[in-house]
Amino acid sequence: MPRYRLVLEFDGGPFVGWQRQENGPSVQAAVERAIGAMLNETVTVFAAGRTDAGVHALAMPVHFDLDRDVAPEKLMAGINHHLRPDPVAVLDARRTDDDFHARFSAVSRSYVYRILNRRPTPAIERGRVWHVARRLSTERMQEASQALLGKHDFTSFRSSECQASSPVKMLNRVHVERFGDEIHFKLEAPSFLHHQVRNIVGSLKLIGEGSRPVSFIDDALKARDRSQAGPTAPAQGLYFVRADYPASNW
Amino acid sequence: MPRYRLVLEFDGGPFVGWQRQENGPSVQAAVERAIGAMLNETVTVFAAGRTDAGVHALAMPVHFDLDRDVAPEKLMAGINHHLRPDPVAVLDARRTDDDFHARFSAVSRSYVYRILNRRPTPAIERGRVWHVARRLSTERMQEASQALLGKHDFTSFRSSECQASSPVKMLNRVHVERFGDEIHFKLEAPSFLHHQVRNIVGSLKLIGEGSRPVSFIDDALKARDRSQAGPTAPAQGLYFVRADYPASNW
Repeated sequence: MPRYRLVLEFDGGPFVGWQRQENGPSVQAAVERAIGAMLNETVTVFAAGRTDAGVHALAMPVHFDLDRDVAPEKLMAGINHHLRPDPVAVLDARRTDDDFHARFSAVSRSYVYRILNRRPTPAIERGRVWHVARRLSTERMQEASQALLGKHDFTSFRSSECQASSPVKMLNRVHVERFGDEIHFKLEAPSFLHHQVRNIVGSLKLIGEGSRPVSFIDDALKARDRSQAGPTAPAQGLYFVRADYPASNW
Repeated sequence: MPRYRLVLEFDGGPFVGWQRQENGPSVQAAVERAIGAMLNETVTVFAAGRTDAGVHALAMPVHFDLDRDVAPEKLMAGINHHLRPDPVAVLDARRTDDDFHARFSAVSRSYVYRILNRRPTPAIERGRVWHVARRLSTERMQEASQALLGKHDFTSFRSSECQASSPVKMLNRVHVERFGDEIHFKLEAPSFLHHQVRNIVGSLKLIGEGSRPVSFIDDALKARDRSQAGPTAPAQGLYFVRADYPASNW
């Protein structure tokens, strides 16, 4: 059975998340339905990351198997045609090796979180940023964030629903930068715990607005207690940016 | 009567345009209604540019008179509160001189037009860009566009509904640049004819895709005949970026 990988862009707004669920439309179901409509095959699509409701993706790798060979160009055009009502687009389609797995082959994932930091609410970027009216110090958040780098027990930044076997994770990169009224948080890790990025951003925001000291992140990390970190930042500001694979596999 | 100026951001998608009309919701009516709801006054709001249906604004200056003094900070917060259901935001509010007029005092206006130039349709930027699947040459479009600089009779790029007294206009700046999959067209002029930017972009696109020679713009300009230029580019890619005023007036 030939295996294919796609790269998807999607607006998470109308979806219950990546994963197929009973309670509403998922990105996975939309893509599987489009493939089914095009090829009259029932497929299961696996993604590099299982994003939550409202979380967007700029370039999400996914894979699936087909019964027969289809030219990747034709596959991309056909799936995009059948996806048209949904805010999901296939940016790239390729044949791939049988041992490629969008989720398990990935060696790292990158996210960006966007805060719109100004008094007025967003008119154009509504649903695509977290609006924070109170002025945030990028310098304080950037400084605090560096305590998260490396291997740590991230229990304090982990959702109670997280199914990972261990709360110990590596964080390769965290960077906070202002672009005009926007603040971008960039994070890269081999893998993330459930809500890890949103809980980190929600905690950094408290430092940025001055209601917690810069040491708050480090203290929360060491406490290994979810109640010692900040609240979960809303989904709408979060973007799955990319996943990386060993060159031999991609 | 104290005069105020605001700077507005809006998503043109749900509106029939800036101007109050019988056939649907306008940005002007939304702002006038918000001011009315806040202060119980009936006001008329004047904008630097009267954008069409679907056209967005990043920073549109407007002005209006009130019966009484209101602190600008309070005015901005109050109008934003009452605008909340609409994708319109007040970014700035100030008291201004009685001789300031958002439209007539403006010495120049700037627009940007965004094309998403890639095969797949947009998922995240839907309604905010013109999607063009065929690869466009930015170099050809940039070269062709320079023929538009300076003072010309822009009859070929003017909508039949244009109410300007003369088709002769000055164009101070036109620049075409690619940013990844996006192509941005930046134009600046003291004022524009109806559909002028969209007709210019629609014509440049034909040159970019290679179906017209680079000389097409110059030839169309000299023909002074709307039928000799390209079609009108869709509204959803157009953004009113800013208006400039004499320093003494702003």
